[in-house]
Amino acid sequence: MPPQILICSTIVWAHDDVKELLGGIAEIIYVDAPDRASFLADCKPEGKYGGAVGIYRENESAKEIGVFDKELIDGLPSKVKWIAHNGAGYDPVDVHACIARGIYLSNTPGAVDDATATTALYLIISTLRQFAVAERSLRALKWKPSGLNTKAHDVSGRTLAILGLGGIGSRLAELVQSFPMRVIYHSRRKVADAPAYCEYFEDVDEMLKQTDVLSVHVPLRKETVGLVGEQMIRTLKPGAIIINTARGKVIDEEALIRALEDGHLSAAGLDVFPNEPDVNPRLLEFPQVTLLPHMGTENQDTQRKMEVRALTNLRDFLTTGQGKDLVIEWKNHAAANVKPRL
Amino acid sequence: MPPQILICSTIVWAHDDVKELLGGIAEIIYVDAPDRASFLADCKPEGKYGGAVGIYRENESAKEIGVFDKELIDGLPSKVKWIAHNGAGYDPVDVHACIARGIYLSNTPGAVDDATATTALYLIISTLRQFAVAERSLRALKWKPSGLNTKAHDVSGRTLAILGLGGIGSRLAELVQSFPMRVIYHSRRKVADAPAYCEYFEDVDEMLKQTDVLSVHVPLRKETVGLVGEQMIRTLKPGAIIINTARGKVIDEEALIRALEDGHLSAAGLDVFPNEPDVNPRLLEFPQVTLLPHMGTENQDTQRKMEVRALTNLRDFLTTGQGKDLVIEWKNHAAANVKPRL
Repeated sequence: MPPQILICSTIVWAHDDVKELLGGIAEIIYVDAPDRASFLADCKPEGKYGGAVGIYRENESAKEIGVFDKELIDGLPSKVKWIAHNGAGYDPVDVHACIARGIYLSNTPGAVDDATATTALYLIISTLRQFAVAERSLRALKWKPSGLNTKAHDVSGRTLAILGLGGIGSRLAELVQSFPMRVIYHSRRKVADAPAYCEYFEDVDEMLKQTDVLSVHVPLRKETVGLVGEQMIRTLKPGAIIINTARGKVIDEEALIRALEDGHLSAAGLDVFPNEPDVNPRLLEFPQVTLLPHMGTENQDTQRKMEVRALTNLRDFLTTGQGKDLVIEWKNHAAANVKPRL
Repeated sequence: MPPQILICSTIVWAHDDVKELLGGIAEIIYVDAPDRASFLADCKPEGKYGGAVGIYRENESAKEIGVFDKELIDGLPSKVKWIAHNGAGYDPVDVHACIARGIYLSNTPGAVDDATATTALYLIISTLRQFAVAERSLRALKWKPSGLNTKAHDVSGRTLAILGLGGIGSRLAELVQSFPMRVIYHSRRKVADAPAYCEYFEDVDEMLKQTDVLSVHVPLRKETVGLVGEQMIRTLKPGAIIINTARGKVIDEEALIRALEDGHLSAAGLDVFPNEPDVNPRLLEFPQVTLLPHMGTENQDTQRKMEVRALTNLRDFLTTGQGKDLVIEWKNHAAANVKPRL
């Protein structure tokens, strides 16, 4: 009998790929539990998910069974050894609970880089050039607001500061080379293989003082909640712009709003919010702010890539006992020589 | 007494540059005529503009004295030998009337390339990714319209067709290299110094059949009115997108609307319209269409570059008898060995 793989809870684009990647080597079970209690009941040894060794997870499954917190992870079938999360950010999965149980966790970092960086690029152009304001004016049949040119700037030649030069930040740095923008960055440490056009600032304040546009690309962790707060924002050059395609909670929203109100920030471009899908209505009061409803990877090409990548991680685990895209906490854990229980 | 230069009718950004470029070699006169009749009266030999040899012209002057049609050009002071138009498109100036009088006409092609191509890039991202729809949904506090991902595509890997590979089209080709998009183009003839990543199609229909996104970059002339009409639009691949940052009249708007209605085109991104500032309200009915109020060069950095470039053309004329940026009709006229009367 083949091992079971649970799909929590749908595959939207890669139906054919599921068969190609896992057909023959695993029994594919689509989770149809209507709520957490029934899901956990089915995870018991005698339950219908009792033979599962791997789980494919995407965020929509939270609607039925909730996020993968400690309670849920502790209730997973005993043979589960791999959770393949579909997404770059895996804050809805308690990675420490996974490590404690010896369950590997993978995400899909590479697959999201291009689409998310393109979203950041769009927000940069929109805010620097005042395009979102302009389009709303046209759609109100008022043509062009007068004086918009005095607030608008070319993209070419501006200084872009990237906070967190991982996959998405690096891709954004690459995308803006054609203008070019000057690219400076701060990460916890200098990125060894960063291209020459990315200038490292060990001192984040020194970077912020030279910044026209700050684009945030750090994951949400306990240490990054509110990371871009009053202090960082006020260190930015007056008139600077903040772009966020990472996670809403990485920015202190109240500090951001204050800086927009008093003009220290000239604009912001936000694809993410602290309490999605709720949006603080005070943000809507700023005409020069461009707001998107978490569209970072919201397109069929990238979503298929992400599904295929997460499924590939499961297949690699089933066939080799290892998969790509193990999350950083697991890599650090493994580097500390604590062998996961396989 | 120095020659007179007329400024029709304002310099917004380059005040200091006017003095630097023309101070000492010309008397600068800011045209303050409230209407065409008084302007033409002042252009007579005894009038206050009677000594003018060069004219700086920007589009706002049309509000007082109208466009530079044959009547106006024929009424210009007799010594006028150079009109420096501020803008890439010079359809508001009758170039044939200029040639008939031996008045050189220059535009500012290079100065607009980056800003206009960036506008086209924004429209490409917005339409392929469905961002304008998404932002309106968020601002209506409705978060993300469901199913938007099924209509949205990555930019990377799509085929961009450029109709008219001049300065702006070439700059756009360069900007999309970082994704990359595949770039194909059609111009009246193969561009000798086009980069290798631009593939020439002599047969425009063959190009259109392979096109995901068509971006229009031809000037408005008698021959280009309605150039992108029923035939070209229907030859495009079903689901294609049209981007226009050139001139509204180059596209047959009725044919465009029909193709949006029946879904042959999946979207359009328009910065220009046939009767600006009027916009056909039927365009507003398509949620997936991104509409900007002619923002192509609407920012202080590029507008300063354009003013400086037009003023430089006048300075070069005054000091050397020639200037850069002579328009193509004049170049052709000169190539036919008909010497302009200097």
